[in-house]
Amino acid sequence: MPNPTAAILVIGDEILSGRTRDSNMHFLAQELTKQGIDLKEARVVSDNRAAIIEAVRALSAGHDHVFTSGGIGPTHDDITADCIAAAFDVTIGIRDDARALLAAHYARQGVEFNAARQRMARIPEGATLIENPVSVAPGFTIGNVHVMAGVPNVFQAMVASVLPGLTGGAPLLSQSLRIDRGEGEIAGPLAQLAEDYPELSIGSYPYQRNGIYGANIVIRGQDGAQVDAAMTRLAGMFPA
Amino acid sequence: MPNPTAAILVIGDEILSGRTRDSNMHFLAQELTKQGIDLKEARVVSDNRAAIIEAVRALSAGHDHVFTSGGIGPTHDDITADCIAAAFDVTIGIRDDARALLAAHYARQGVEFNAARQRMARIPEGATLIENPVSVAPGFTIGNVHVMAGVPNVFQAMVASVLPGLTGGAPLLSQSLRIDRGEGEIAGPLAQLAEDYPELSIGSYPYQRNGIYGANIVIRGQDGAQVDAAMTRLAGMFPA
Repeated sequence: MPNPTAAILVIGDEILSGRTRDSNMHFLAQELTKQGIDLKEARVVSDNRAAIIEAVRALSAGHDHVFTSGGIGPTHDDITADCIAAAFDVTIGIRDDARALLAAHYARQGVEFNAARQRMARIPEGATLIENPVSVAPGFTIGNVHVMAGVPNVFQAMVASVLPGLTGGAPLLSQSLRIDRGEGEIAGPLAQLAEDYPELSIGSYPYQRNGIYGANIVIRGQDGAQVDAAMTRLAGMFPA
Repeated sequence: MPNPTAAILVIGDEILSGRTRDSNMHFLAQELTKQGIDLKEARVVSDNRAAIIEAVRALSAGHDHVFTSGGIGPTHDDITADCIAAAFDVTIGIRDDARALLAAHYARQGVEFNAARQRMARIPEGATLIENPVSVAPGFTIGNVHVMAGVPNVFQAMVASVLPGLTGGAPLLSQSLRIDRGEGEIAGPLAQLAEDYPELSIGSYPYQRNGIYGANIVIRGQDGAQVDAAMTRLAGMFPA
């Protein structure tokens, strides 16, 4: 059976303007690979209502799971929750359980639970909450879309809350070999290897360092014995 | 007049499996912002023919410029050029000028210009070449799509070859202020500021460090005097 597929949608002007470098995509890619869920696509869109709604609908229709990052805080530019509700054609409002979590948190801190902070208890109808052990304000899952914060340590904590509940497949195994020859010399034998192992994914990632051309060859697959066999043949083709 | 818009399409299994962290998106975002071209969307897709063709068509139709990264080398997993040709419904074959560049390069190096290396001279019909001062094998532009290598130093050199030929708009100016208060306290006054300056983009990027909550507020716009005025008001609202 093929593994479940996933996409990530990163929401935020700050990534697209080059001000901030996204790290959530890379973190999620690694976590999903371990769990046997294949990340097939990533998108970044700006804080724009139409762009967010269109991307959520397209990715939700095309993949088993969608993970979003960003735009669920208390400020005016946090429009993700409203856009998700619109994408699913459901209403959104302050929900009692989310409100109670936040009220208790701010009471403990002795901080006013003002209107801006109450915005973080707005949850689309029919969603389930995602626990946030870092800063309490919850994420939520609706349909196959998991809506999480953009701040990296909160995103990571929410991923840890969500992933154990998802059914994974066979983890993707990989082995790599560094070959200090130009890709042009590696390409012929490598194409033959790829043809002989159609169930494996064989990638070549070139580099140039200090004027030396080389490539890291990565062999990936779900069957460890096949990966081993292909890697043994590759190493035999290009002895160090 | 609004600025031209752009999208980037990063092609490669290695990003989605979490093996490699993409850096080309962040680099391009910064370069486009300087040039007054608004990066509106980024996508990452795997080395899959249907996924690449669909993304190229969608992004080409939706933006003034599309930049692609990855998949134009000599190995079997380099399928970008063929997919671009398919997306534009044109033929692809080895082109004399690209072939001559590569033949001269490998002759200088005393390296065989074999079949794999000749693959890098395959260019879709009607494209113009993008100069590659790092490793010679050219990128190409077809329609509004600029097709470039994934290796970061080659990608960066190709961006430097392409950008001067594109018409930019007014560069996006930005100023930022760090406020050591939780977003929940900042949100109300900030929403008012955003309402009073509808032509500016005002973003709030929260952080938590050593248990302290704060946010970096970034004000962006094309009119420097407006950005100044809004920043002065913001600083007055939250004296350090």
